[in-house]
Amino acid sequence: MLQMLKGIGASSGIAIAKAHCLHTAAPVIEKDSRLGTQAELERFGAAVSLAVTQVRELKALTAQKLGEAEAGIFEAHLLVLDDPELLGAVREQIIAQEATAEYALQEVTRQIVVSFESLNTEYLRERAGDIRDVSRRVMNALSGRATGVQDIKQPVIIVAQDLTPSDTVQLNRDYVKGFTTVAGGTTSHSAIMARAMEIPAVVGAADALQEIRQDDLLILDGEEGVLLVNPPSGVIAEYEGKRLELERRKEQQAKLAALPTVSSDGHQVELAGNIGSPGDVAAVLQHGGEGVGLFRTEFLYMGRKELPSEEEQFQAYRSVLEQMGGRPVVVRTIDIGGDKELPCLKLPKEENPFLGFRAIRLCLETAEQELFRTQLRALLRAGVYGNLKIMFPMIATLDELRQAKQVLAQEKRKLEQAGIPAGAGIAVGMMVEIPAAAVMADLFAPEVDFFSIGTNDLIQYTMAADRMNSRVSYLYQPYNPAVLRLIKGVIDAAHSHGKWVGMCGEMAGNRAAIPLLLGLGLDEFSMGAPSILAARECIMQLSRAGMEELARKALSMGTAEEVIALLRQEADRRT
Amino acid sequence: MLQMLKGIGASSGIAIAKAHCLHTAAPVIEKDSRLGTQAELERFGAAVSLAVTQVRELKALTAQKLGEAEAGIFEAHLLVLDDPELLGAVREQIIAQEATAEYALQEVTRQIVVSFESLNTEYLRERAGDIRDVSRRVMNALSGRATGVQDIKQPVIIVAQDLTPSDTVQLNRDYVKGFTTVAGGTTSHSAIMARAMEIPAVVGAADALQEIRQDDLLILDGEEGVLLVNPPSGVIAEYEGKRLELERRKEQQAKLAALPTVSSDGHQVELAGNIGSPGDVAAVLQHGGEGVGLFRTEFLYMGRKELPSEEEQFQAYRSVLEQMGGRPVVVRTIDIGGDKELPCLKLPKEENPFLGFRAIRLCLETAEQELFRTQLRALLRAGVYGNLKIMFPMIATLDELRQAKQVLAQEKRKLEQAGIPAGAGIAVGMMVEIPAAAVMADLFAPEVDFFSIGTNDLIQYTMAADRMNSRVSYLYQPYNPAVLRLIKGVIDAAHSHGKWVGMCGEMAGNRAAIPLLLGLGLDEFSMGAPSILAARECIMQLSRAGMEELARKALSMGTAEEVIALLRQEADRRT
Repeated sequence: MLQMLKGIGASSGIAIAKAHCLHTAAPVIEKDSRLGTQAELERFGAAVSLAVTQVRELKALTAQKLGEAEAGIFEAHLLVLDDPELLGAVREQIIAQEATAEYALQEVTRQIVVSFESLNTEYLRERAGDIRDVSRRVMNALSGRATGVQDIKQPVIIVAQDLTPSDTVQLNRDYVKGFTTVAGGTTSHSAIMARAMEIPAVVGAADALQEIRQDDLLILDGEEGVLLVNPPSGVIAEYEGKRLELERRKEQQAKLAALPTVSSDGHQVELAGNIGSPGDVAAVLQHGGEGVGLFRTEFLYMGRKELPSEEEQFQAYRSVLEQMGGRPVVVRTIDIGGDKELPCLKLPKEENPFLGFRAIRLCLETAEQELFRTQLRALLRAGVYGNLKIMFPMIATLDELRQAKQVLAQEKRKLEQAGIPAGAGIAVGMMVEIPAAAVMADLFAPEVDFFSIGTNDLIQYTMAADRMNSRVSYLYQPYNPAVLRLIKGVIDAAHSHGKWVGMCGEMAGNRAAIPLLLGLGLDEFSMGAPSILAARECIMQLSRAGMEELARKALSMGTAEEVIALLRQEADRRT
Repeated sequence: MLQMLKGIGASSGIAIAKAHCLHTAAPVIEKDSRLGTQAELERFGAAVSLAVTQVRELKALTAQKLGEAEAGIFEAHLLVLDDPELLGAVREQIIAQEATAEYALQEVTRQIVVSFESLNTEYLRERAGDIRDVSRRVMNALSGRATGVQDIKQPVIIVAQDLTPSDTVQLNRDYVKGFTTVAGGTTSHSAIMARAMEIPAVVGAADALQEIRQDDLLILDGEEGVLLVNPPSGVIAEYEGKRLELERRKEQQAKLAALPTVSSDGHQVELAGNIGSPGDVAAVLQHGGEGVGLFRTEFLYMGRKELPSEEEQFQAYRSVLEQMGGRPVVVRTIDIGGDKELPCLKLPKEENPFLGFRAIRLCLETAEQELFRTQLRALLRAGVYGNLKIMFPMIATLDELRQAKQVLAQEKRKLEQAGIPAGAGIAVGMMVEIPAAAVMADLFAPEVDFFSIGTNDLIQYTMAADRMNSRVSYLYQPYNPAVLRLIKGVIDAAHSHGKWVGMCGEMAGNRAAIPLLLGLGLDEFSMGAPSILAARECIMQLSRAGMEELARKALSMGTAEEVIALLRQEADRRT
């Protein structure tokens, strides 16, 4: 019987294959040890060692396949496996209760996870996820079981409660055509990895494990967030057609990789990629990126106990610049603090981290300025090896911009005085992601070389709606005319001072938004590498003049719904 | 020797008197009971009963002296004194450890407070404060000691680690000329109460208890946040002069209570008071308020286990309207959720409560709409008894405004159909406190009768800086030109549609801001009652035309510092 399940489209594409259900039935665990305490302690030690080896391998594999940033999660796992409190608690339980290693591990994990989850903060929930993932790995090492993901040797769509990062990175692209999970949102680890690996995925499919049985035939539409269970042959044929059409289209788009991005009436823009580490550059080039519009530098800092050295940073930045071979690379200085906590910086927990002490605010504070200066020195030195542009995140006031530029100038002078080569003519810009900066863009524009609009934050502050909070997600409206007016104001202010404007939020890679952004006058669109070719194809079919008219209409509207209807109408007209 | 200590000016005014230091040395507590378990249980029960009686009395006293809203804190104390878990834990300790009631109470309090404070959220820190206050009260009841505040019978300035709300409300205005605390910020309970009681106060004076000895002569300047210890006679004379000047000025201002607020060139504005409960109306009238510009209705919901009935709300609203005798009363529908948690509504803890599910967002959600509809019915019925205006908080989109207006219209129709009298011609407006609403003010204006700008929130969202987070407080800039541009845009949009604009944030009562706001075209200024007369005196000396010129200059500036310098220059020119 045909059945349709709804979830959240987390990674686009269509997959048609049999279901492979991962029922993670809990293993039966004996409490009392028959082997004796000493033997259990040894078993536990050996299992932890094995887990450490596995995680190190996974980390290397991920860094190579997906980049350093994605590998950061395993750094966090290694920290858990090296946590003396956690390991000590398990050992104590083994001794005190004369228990099996499995029982002790299960109890300690359960206590920690329960206490973390009861605190109900995003950060600790994520840490609870790490601990659960690591604990399962050690448990498997104790019992000699595997998670089962690696053993798949025929085309399937995986159906699971959740996929850990460990699971996801081990998925074999040759056999795993897609996956769906009961848990998760579009920003969950598995969703992010699915997009990076270009595996179609639907997350948050609440009933998937109840409604789908092993070997049911599934159609998964990762764009629409839909699962069809045991569809009739007509529907299969229809989706097979769609799938082939998507593939054909991808092949066609691949031909655009080496072309410039020019609208039908001759207006050229730049399409760039967002990257998180040097390992991500290859995908940008392969998908025809003309530059890097956002290099997030946080990966260097995540999941480690000490701050990265200037030399380590220099090598990373130089690698990106050299790989990009003279194409522009916009590096964002570190955007940490707030929700992005770092073990190597002890920052107090905040009541409203999105409105807190982070990014440039943290960088400019005297106590932490060395962190900022080290990064700027590494960047200036790397600037010799390519077309570097530096931008500062979370700028709210002219003072902050001026201070940041002054620190940069000071470090440049110091390098010159020491006879160390530094890049010449490096463009300096800022993120526009705080309403105050957008409103004041006319006075910021003369003091920067470019703007990059960070829509993710700009939208949440403009609407006063936390983008991670599902209860107010209806207010996180990229198409709210207030947001569009601010974007338009920023672009006009920059252009009237002869400066260019990029955008590096999710919106820039969204096919529905691109016609509007072209019409608003955006100069550079930066997005995840897999979206670049589709964006180029889209823009090549658009007339800039027509889109300006479209933008004018959108700007005069009152609600996001009206704008969305207008854009849909425009999309329908084109197809 | 003269010594100067800096703190935060929490309540303005000058006090000159001897220091009365409250060293809260911990009493010596015996662990082992000599009286036996049964006797300890009885002592504990009697002490709790006594504490309940005291808190009930304090609550009534506060409601009468300061209003219902301020009395809400004692409602929270009564909930603590009625908490079966807390009381049960103390009784268990008494029994299990054969301990004294004091020891058991101390231990249980310590555990709860430590666990709450370790969680490091504002809400739980406040709860920890409540529990500490209540516990101290029960402890005093056990030992027969008093806090000492009531016993003061000569003019003093109190120097304390912190003052609990219980302490503050018991301060005798005849003898307590001012107080200073080591703890606290301008929004702490004691600071808020000091302003309401018009007692000069300096909080956050870190070294006060170390540097000040009993009977030291003190000068306290609550405007500047300064304490002078043992000043020479010349300095005393100077401050005595200042104090008399302030008093003289207050007397002069009192003569303005019955006058309209007209600038020197004949432009009239309205000065209104912010209130939290019917008990606050008297102070507004006494200080010459021409209306209520913000009636916060949360007091009806705070610190209680059940939602207030329609009848109870009706009586409260009617009382305010009748007391105001035809003068305008702007009631804000409930702004709860987020950081304002309510025991009677179970709301999940949020990661960023300031960007969360609160106010109109919560009111419009179907599951909670009855809460909203009950309040609207009570308001509509009360509207018969005066000049009622209703406004909705946290409006971000036209959809929300339209929905809220629709719900109001539905309830009005229902009342009419049931033959229940409802106010006619009630003006309906909205708070402008979210950047999106400010940016879209031209499209909101035709759909409302008035705007009220909520600067506290508007500033924090525009600057993306949590106003409660001290690490980013430098970014909470009322005078940032981005904020001023948004305010100007809102006022111009309203005026071009023939609507009026009020302001009910802290800024409206700030003497430095008033000239600027007059120049920006603000029609109604709503503030704490004690600020009204000084504001009137200020405006009567200003020329509207001159302030328009001042505002034009401010709007063309780049930084808050420049605007502040301009305003200081203007203030100097006038004096």
